[in-house]
Amino acid sequence: MHILIIGAGGMIGRKLAATLGRSGSLGGDTITRMTLVDVTPPPVPADVFVPAEALAADISESGAAEALAARRADVIFHLAAIVSGEAERNFDLGYKVNLDGTRLLLEAIRREGSRQAYVPRFVFSSSIAVYGSPFPDPIPDDYVLAPLTSYGVQKAISELLLADYSRRGFIDGVGIRLPTIVIRPGAPNAAASGFFSGILREPLAGQRAVLPVEETVKHWLASPRSAIKFLIHAATLDTAALGVRRTLTMPGVAATVADQIAALRRAAGPEAAELIDRRRDEVIEGIVAGWPKSFTPERATQLGFVAETTVDELIEVYLAEDAPGASG
Amino acid sequence: MHILIIGAGGMIGRKLAATLGRSGSLGGDTITRMTLVDVTPPPVPADVFVPAEALAADISESGAAEALAARRADVIFHLAAIVSGEAERNFDLGYKVNLDGTRLLLEAIRREGSRQAYVPRFVFSSSIAVYGSPFPDPIPDDYVLAPLTSYGVQKAISELLLADYSRRGFIDGVGIRLPTIVIRPGAPNAAASGFFSGILREPLAGQRAVLPVEETVKHWLASPRSAIKFLIHAATLDTAALGVRRTLTMPGVAATVADQIAALRRAAGPEAAELIDRRRDEVIEGIVAGWPKSFTPERATQLGFVAETTVDELIEVYLAEDAPGASG
Repeated sequence: MHILIIGAGGMIGRKLAATLGRSGSLGGDTITRMTLVDVTPPPVPADVFVPAEALAADISESGAAEALAARRADVIFHLAAIVSGEAERNFDLGYKVNLDGTRLLLEAIRREGSRQAYVPRFVFSSSIAVYGSPFPDPIPDDYVLAPLTSYGVQKAISELLLADYSRRGFIDGVGIRLPTIVIRPGAPNAAASGFFSGILREPLAGQRAVLPVEETVKHWLASPRSAIKFLIHAATLDTAALGVRRTLTMPGVAATVADQIAALRRAAGPEAAELIDRRRDEVIEGIVAGWPKSFTPERATQLGFVAETTVDELIEVYLAEDAPGASG
Repeated sequence: MHILIIGAGGMIGRKLAATLGRSGSLGGDTITRMTLVDVTPPPVPADVFVPAEALAADISESGAAEALAARRADVIFHLAAIVSGEAERNFDLGYKVNLDGTRLLLEAIRREGSRQAYVPRFVFSSSIAVYGSPFPDPIPDDYVLAPLTSYGVQKAISELLLADYSRRGFIDGVGIRLPTIVIRPGAPNAAASGFFSGILREPLAGQRAVLPVEETVKHWLASPRSAIKFLIHAATLDTAALGVRRTLTMPGVAATVADQIAALRRAAGPEAAELIDRRRDEVIEGIVAGWPKSFTPERATQLGFVAETTVDELIEVYLAEDAPGASG
C-alpha cells in the first residue's frame, strides 16, 4: 500500500507520517511506501521502517497535481492549506491554494483514472471554520455551512467538490472537520486560536501566557493524537455508509476557558493557573465570537470516530506525546 | 441606471428584460440602458422604451467576463447556466460554465473595482437543487446544502463565492433559490421536471400530457411572474439585513400532483384532467424522489418576497401572461 501525504510538513502531517511509518500498516494492509509532500521538502520521520520519499511540490502550480496523481497512491491525505489568517489577508493566495489546489488535485486524479482505472481513498482535512454565527449551540450535523472567513468558504467549497467527485466515482472521498487542536506543541503562534493551547502549554512549562478573552468563551477541542486517529479512521472506514455527505464533523471536547483553567489547576497546581495574564483583546474577542462552541457529531460518532471527553485528557495527551522531552 | 442581464436568452431572462424594459425603472431609478447577454445574441424585447443592446458572450471564455465588467453596470443579473441534465451528462462543461463562469465574472468585477471603485448589485439565480435527500419536509432556512447533482454542487459553490465576495465588499450580492417554475410556456422539454408544467399546460390547450410519477409526489412551485418579481426584489432590497448569508430560498406553492390535477379540473373542467396519461417512469421517479418537497422560507418572506399560494393562481398567471395569445 502506497500512502501520499500532501501537507506533510505541518504539525499534523509530520505526526501522521511518523505514526504511519512506525505502525507500518493501515487498516490491516502493509504500507510499502510513503510519499511526503509539502511546498518545501518535509522531514522524513526517524525510526520508521517504511520507505519514505520527501518531495517539494505546490499543488496549485501547473503540473504538480498531475505528477502526484501519476504516482497512483492507494490513499491520499490532503492536509495542505493556507491557514485562516493568511487566507484572509491574501485573498488571491487563499483561493489559489485552498480552492484551486484542491480542485487541481481532484481533476488530476480524475484524469489519471480516465487513463487507467484509479479511485483512491482521498482523506481531506476540513475545519469547523465552515460554520459561522448565528448558529445553535450545539450545532447539529445537518446545519448549514455559512463561513465567516475566506478560509472557511474555501474549505466548504472543497467539501462540495469532494462530495461530487466521490458521487461520480472519481475518488473515494472522506472529509473530516477538525476541532481546534489543543494542546498544539511548540512555540506560541499568532493565530487567533493560539491562546486555547497557550494558556495550558505555557503554564505547564512554568511560563506566563496571555488570555485575551473571557473565561466563559466555549470552544470545540481535540488533541493532536485524536486528529491523527481521525485521519487514519477516515482512511479505513467503509464509505458505503456515508452516502453523498462525505464530510463529517469530528467529535471533540466542548470546553470553556474556565474548564481549561480548572483542568490546568488539577494537572499542575493552583500556581500554574496564576501564570495566566488576563488581557482582553477586542479583535480576538470579535473573531472568536463567530466560532462554533460545540457540536452533536452524531454521524461521526456512529461511524466510530472517538475523541477526548475532558480537558484533563487533552493535557495528559500533551504531556505523554507532544511536550518537550515526551516520548512522541 | 444601467442593467446587465447575463443569460438574457432564456425563458426567465427574456421575461425579465421585457418587464424591465416596459417599466423603465427599477427601485425608483430610471433605467437608462440595458445590456442583454447570452451565448447567442438574445432577442431585444419589443415595445420597450429603454435602449437595449444584445451581445453574444460566453462568460467562461477568456476575456468575456472582463469585457462585461468594464461596462460597469449598476445591477447585474447572472442567470446563465448549463441546465441540470446537461451538467450531469457533461461534467467538464457544467463546471466550466456554472462554476468557472461565475467565478470569472466575480473576479472581473473585483478587478474592475480595484481599478476604480465599483460594487454593483449582483443578483444570482440559484436553485433548490442545492438540497438533496434525506431532508425534513419542510426544509428550514438553515438546513445543510447537500446536492445530489453536479449542477446543484455548482450552484452551492457559487452561493459560497457570492457570500465571500459580498463580505469582502467586492460585490453587493443577493442569491435567490428559485422553485421549479410552473407553468413554463412553450413546447414540452426533456427536463425531468418538465411534467410539472406539462400536466397543466397541455390539457389547458386540449392536448394530452404524460404523468410519469405518482399523484402523491409533492414539489415546490412558483410562476414565471413570481420568478421575475423575485429577481427585481433581489435587485432593490436593502442588503444590510442579509448578513453573510446572501442566498435565500424563495417562497412557493407546496403542491402534490393531485393538487395540480384538482386545480386543473377547477380551471378547465373534468375533461381536461382526462387528458393526462399515467405512465410511470422509474428513472424520473428516482430523480424526483431526491428533490425537495417544501420549505419554510422565513428569511425571504420577512424580506418581502411573495409567491403564489395555490396551483389555481399558477394556472391564472399562465393564462393571463404566458399562454399562447396571452397579453404577456
